[in-house]
Amino acid sequence: METVSENRCFGGIQTVYKHRSAVCACEMTFAVFLPPQAGNGKVPCIWYLSGLTCTHENAMTKAGLQAHAAEHGVAIIFPDTSPRGDHVADDEAYDLGQGAGFYVNATKAPWNAHFKMYDYIVKELRDLVEGAFPLNGRHGITGHSMGGHGALIIALRNPDLYQSVSAFAPISNPTQSAWGRKQLTAYLGDDEAEWADYDATILLRERGWNGEILIDQGADDQFISLLRPHALAGVVTENCQPAVLRMQDRYDHSYFFVSTFGGDHIAWHAERLRGANHTLTISREAAQ
Amino acid sequence: METVSENRCFGGIQTVYKHRSAVCACEMTFAVFLPPQAGNGKVPCIWYLSGLTCTHENAMTKAGLQAHAAEHGVAIIFPDTSPRGDHVADDEAYDLGQGAGFYVNATKAPWNAHFKMYDYIVKELRDLVEGAFPLNGRHGITGHSMGGHGALIIALRNPDLYQSVSAFAPISNPTQSAWGRKQLTAYLGDDEAEWADYDATILLRERGWNGEILIDQGADDQFISLLRPHALAGVVTENCQPAVLRMQDRYDHSYFFVSTFGGDHIAWHAERLRGANHTLTISREAAQ
Repeated sequence: METVSENRCFGGIQTVYKHRSAVCACEMTFAVFLPPQAGNGKVPCIWYLSGLTCTHENAMTKAGLQAHAAEHGVAIIFPDTSPRGDHVADDEAYDLGQGAGFYVNATKAPWNAHFKMYDYIVKELRDLVEGAFPLNGRHGITGHSMGGHGALIIALRNPDLYQSVSAFAPISNPTQSAWGRKQLTAYLGDDEAEWADYDATILLRERGWNGEILIDQGADDQFISLLRPHALAGVVTENCQPAVLRMQDRYDHSYFFVSTFGGDHIAWHAERLRGANHTLTISREAAQ
Repeated sequence: METVSENRCFGGIQTVYKHRSAVCACEMTFAVFLPPQAGNGKVPCIWYLSGLTCTHENAMTKAGLQAHAAEHGVAIIFPDTSPRGDHVADDEAYDLGQGAGFYVNATKAPWNAHFKMYDYIVKELRDLVEGAFPLNGRHGITGHSMGGHGALIIALRNPDLYQSVSAFAPISNPTQSAWGRKQLTAYLGDDEAEWADYDATILLRERGWNGEILIDQGADDQFISLLRPHALAGVVTENCQPAVLRMQDRYDHSYFFVSTFGGDHIAWHAERLRGANHTLTISREAAQ
């Protein structure tokens, strides 16, 4: 693990690292923010998964999450969105290949040689950061757009590994969207049964989530038809899944939207990662 | 004035505009953040001047100032750092020409055709934004690095136009620095007497400032020898100039530094722009 850069930030440290990934069979870059509290003991961490065309850097520089993480004493892990390199398969489209890993384990050539972002996030990078940093073993996960999709499917499939989950404008139902069908076909093949493990709407319907889920969506999001928030909202209401779905008036898909609500998400995760048996305030009130 | 982009942000609006500048004789781009309070009346504004190689965009996307501006009810103006265009003179070096206007009115060819950033900020763009947005006529000014230099020299020369001034890691004494001598020679010529109007250390010594000045400087700033904070600090101490100079332990020159202390600066300006006859707390305590 090689340090690429290190900057003091809100009393903590924002660092970028490179390492050789066995899972993705290439060099991978990721960033870690350690809050000041990490100097005095172990802290929980929140994974932030980025969207299409992004790297580890977008949220690190534009989302303003470090201020809130420093306040609440949580670390943030910012992984890249795909394997990278001249020897890694790619596509001319912005929404396939490098920068568009969709957090799947690809099974079809040429993608299956490197595109294993699911295992990379859930296993390899998790083990690496748990060994390298003062983390207390409690993990939350969030993300934006394609990264919101990643956060939801990873948490829903691994409820023992993640104590909290949220998302910003997630791709909620990729098996029914042009942001999904093309990529799942390329990475996994034509058999749509193979896709279900990577669709948050399907996973939530089948498995539920033992806790609340927080999702913010901009009402003026230019990609809302691709994100399909109504599909996920349908499952929430049908299953009485504890959740807070916020349709934010006049917000779009940009990082101005993410940064506006970033503080709420960090606080939300921090509360659940503290380990208290928190009260499901909103759903209980609604039931009374 | 043409709208380039518009994004909802912290309950306000972050907009980017293009307009034809008569002063710079080219098309110029700038950004404005209007806080939610601007929907109900006029608000004060803070000018944020960026550093070398930057545009209107860097602070807008990376400094996280909008959260604080929305809290305090102040607008922020983010100008570009120089004239731009194929017909505008430039230099291969990153620190001269486009992206490196140094907030001067150039008098020497080829720069004098377009490089009039001092007049652009103090007069043309000020008139434009005062006419276009719900501003109440009270202005603060701040900036980073070359932009910190710009903020200081502009405020010191125009105490009637600015009610508050601060800076992040400003180029404090450009007449004695490689970040200054080269550019002032190019833009103004060899007569160093012409340079004094663009040197914050000289201006503060000669004119003082009727109020406090807030300056943050990273102790691990990789450019500190070019910034020469000791020169400005020398004048502050010699003249007993009310000021808060903070040498921030372990911080560098990056936007991680700017964003960490951005909230303090916005609050500082907001307090002074509210128009109250504020107390010089720190200097009075020090005197007791």
